[in-house]
Amino acid sequence: MVWIGGMGVLVFVIAILPQTSSRSIYLIKAESTGPSVGKLTSKTTLSARILYLIYISLTVILFLLLLIKIPFFDSINYALSTAGTGGFAIHNNSIAHYNSTYVEIVITIFMILFGINFNVFYLVLIGNIRKALKSEELKVYLLILFSAIILIAINTLTLYNNIFTSLRYSAFQSASIMSTSGFSSTNFDMWPEFSKWILIILMFIGSSAGSTAGGIKVSRIIIYFKSVLKEIKYTIHPKQVSIITFEDKPITESVSKGAFAYITAYFIILILGILLISVDNYDFTTNFTAALSSISNVGPGFNLVGPLNNYSMFSSFSKTILALIMITGRLELFPILIFLSPKLYTNH
Amino acid sequence: MVWIGGMGVLVFVIAILPQTSSRSIYLIKAESTGPSVGKLTSKTTLSARILYLIYISLTVILFLLLLIKIPFFDSINYALSTAGTGGFAIHNNSIAHYNSTYVEIVITIFMILFGINFNVFYLVLIGNIRKALKSEELKVYLLILFSAIILIAINTLTLYNNIFTSLRYSAFQSASIMSTSGFSSTNFDMWPEFSKWILIILMFIGSSAGSTAGGIKVSRIIIYFKSVLKEIKYTIHPKQVSIITFEDKPITESVSKGAFAYITAYFIILILGILLISVDNYDFTTNFTAALSSISNVGPGFNLVGPLNNYSMFSSFSKTILALIMITGRLELFPILIFLSPKLYTNH
Repeated sequence: MVWIGGMGVLVFVIAILPQTSSRSIYLIKAESTGPSVGKLTSKTTLSARILYLIYISLTVILFLLLLIKIPFFDSINYALSTAGTGGFAIHNNSIAHYNSTYVEIVITIFMILFGINFNVFYLVLIGNIRKALKSEELKVYLLILFSAIILIAINTLTLYNNIFTSLRYSAFQSASIMSTSGFSSTNFDMWPEFSKWILIILMFIGSSAGSTAGGIKVSRIIIYFKSVLKEIKYTIHPKQVSIITFEDKPITESVSKGAFAYITAYFIILILGILLISVDNYDFTTNFTAALSSISNVGPGFNLVGPLNNYSMFSSFSKTILALIMITGRLELFPILIFLSPKLYTNH
Repeated sequence: MVWIGGMGVLVFVIAILPQTSSRSIYLIKAESTGPSVGKLTSKTTLSARILYLIYISLTVILFLLLLIKIPFFDSINYALSTAGTGGFAIHNNSIAHYNSTYVEIVITIFMILFGINFNVFYLVLIGNIRKALKSEELKVYLLILFSAIILIAINTLTLYNNIFTSLRYSAFQSASIMSTSGFSSTNFDMWPEFSKWILIILMFIGSSAGSTAGGIKVSRIIIYFKSVLKEIKYTIHPKQVSIITFEDKPITESVSKGAFAYITAYFIILILGILLISVDNYDFTTNFTAALSSISNVGPGFNLVGPLNNYSMFSSFSKTILALIMITGRLELFPILIFLSPKLYTNH
C-alpha cells in the first residue's frame, strides 16, 4: 500500500489503463506533488510508465542491498516502505532494531534518492546528466539536507562524544524527516532543542516536487524566496526590469502567487488542525508536532508522538482530524478544498 | 514611549513637522500597519493630525474612566499603555493586581477599541456611521474576537465553575492577546490546551490594519481567504469572471500576492527566530511562544515566558534575536528586509 501510494495510485492507474477523459488530468494534478513549474516531462501515459520503471528499479536495487544484511521478509518490507517514503516499519523501534551502520547508510542514501524529483532520474536515464545536475531544486534540496546534517551532528556531539556516531544518527534522521519517511534509528526526541527544531523545519519543507515525499516542497520555497527578492529589488530600483526563472523557466505571477497561497494554506490548515486536536488536552509539543507530522506525512513527532511512541492515545475525533490532515497534505491541499466546495456540485 | 510608539513615532513626527521630501512617504508606509488597501483616508499631514486627535481623545477618556477606581499615577500609566496596545504594566502581576471587575471591563473595552482601524473612528467622527459600520475588517475582527471569547469561556468553565467569571477572564485575555497588548488578569498559562491554542491563533492574527496593534492583521486574513475562494471558484467554473473586493475596493493581483507574501514571510521569520533562540535549549513551548509573542508584539507567551514570568532567562544572543524580531514585526517585515538589502547601498 505504502509503495503503490508513493508515486500516486492514480498516476499508476492511468499508466496502465487507457486515458479515457479529460477528468483524469485533474486526478494526475492532484496526485503529482509540487507546483507544476519545473516538471521536466509532460504527464502522458508514456512518461508515467517511464517514471514507474525508475521507481521499480530503485526499489529492487534497494531490496538487493538490504538483503545482504537482513532477512528476505524484512528487506522487502523496508525496501517498499523506503521507496514510498512511508516509514512504515515492521519493528516497534524502527530501523534502530538492527543497530547496523550498513543498513542505516543504505536506507539513508535511498531516502535521499526518493526525495529527489523523479524527472532528474529521467534525465539521467536518457543520458542528459549535465541537465540533471543543473536542477536548481536538486541543489537546494541537498544544500538544506547537508546543512541540517552538519548542524545536528555538531549540536548532538555532546550526547554521542564521537563525530562519526553523531553524523551517523544525524544523517539518517535528517534524511528520514526531510524525505518525510519517518524511520528512526535513535530516539531523537532526546536531542537538544536546536536539533529538534531543525527536524521540525525539515518537516515543513519536505522534499522535492515530483518525488514520493510530502511537505511544502523545496521548489515552492525557492519560488517564494526568488519572488520576494525580486519584489525587494523592484522596490529599490523600480526602473530595473528583472525576470526571475526557476529551472530555466520564467516564474510567472500566477506561479509565484500559487506558491505563496500554498504555503499560507499549509500553515492555516496546520493551525486549525492543532486547534481541533487540542480538545484532547495533550501538551503543546505533542499537538503541534502531531499535526505537522500529519500534514507533511512524516509519521513521528515529538514528546507523546515521539519516535518511541504512537498516536494511540488520541481520541477518535482527533484521529479523524489527523487522518483528514494527512490526506489533505498528501493531495496537495487545494484539490481537497475544491472537492469540499459546494459550488462543484451545482450549476454544472 | 509605548504611547508615542503606538501610532508610529514617524507618523507623529510627520504630522508635526512640515513634509520635506518624498522619502517621508516610505517612513509612513513602514510605520502604518497593514496592507494599503482599505485605508479609508489618504496619508497626508492633515489626516495624520485627525488620527492623532482621535488617539489622544480615546486615551484621555480611558484615563478618566480608570481614575474612578485606581490612583492617578496608575491611571496615567495604564491609559498610555492600553492606548499603545503595549501592555507595559507597573505591577508584576499586571491588571490582576487590582482584581477589579470594573478595571478589567474598562480596559477590555479599550483594548478592543484600540485594535480597530482608526479610519473607522474617523468615519464616525465625520458622521458617516453607516459606512463605519460597514467596514468588513471591523466585522471580521469582532467576529473572531467574540468567537474566541465564547469558546474560551466554555472551555475554562470547569476551572472557574461560573460562566460570569470565565467570561470575565476570557474576554479580558482574548482582547489583550488579539490587540497584542499583553496585559494579564489571570494566569492563562494554566488554561486547557484548547484555550491556549486559541490565544496563540489570536497572537498570529492580531488586530486591524491601521490600529496600534501588531500581528498579521485581520485585513490580510480576509484578503487571503477571498483570493483563495476566488481561485477555487475559477477552477470549478473557468468561464465565470468574478471580481473580489475588500472594503468596496477591488482586490488586485498585487494586493493579494502582497498579503500572501506577507503571511508567508511572517511564518518564515517566526520559524527562523525559533531556530536561533533554541540554542538556549529551553523547551518547545517557551521558544515557540516567545518568538511568536515577539513578532506579534504581544508580550507574554506560555510556560517560561508565561504571564507570571518574563524573558530574563534568555541569553544575550537570544534577547538580541527576539528584539530584532519585535522590530521586524512592528515595522511590517518588508521595510526591514529592504534596509538589510545590500542593493540599497549600491548603484544609486
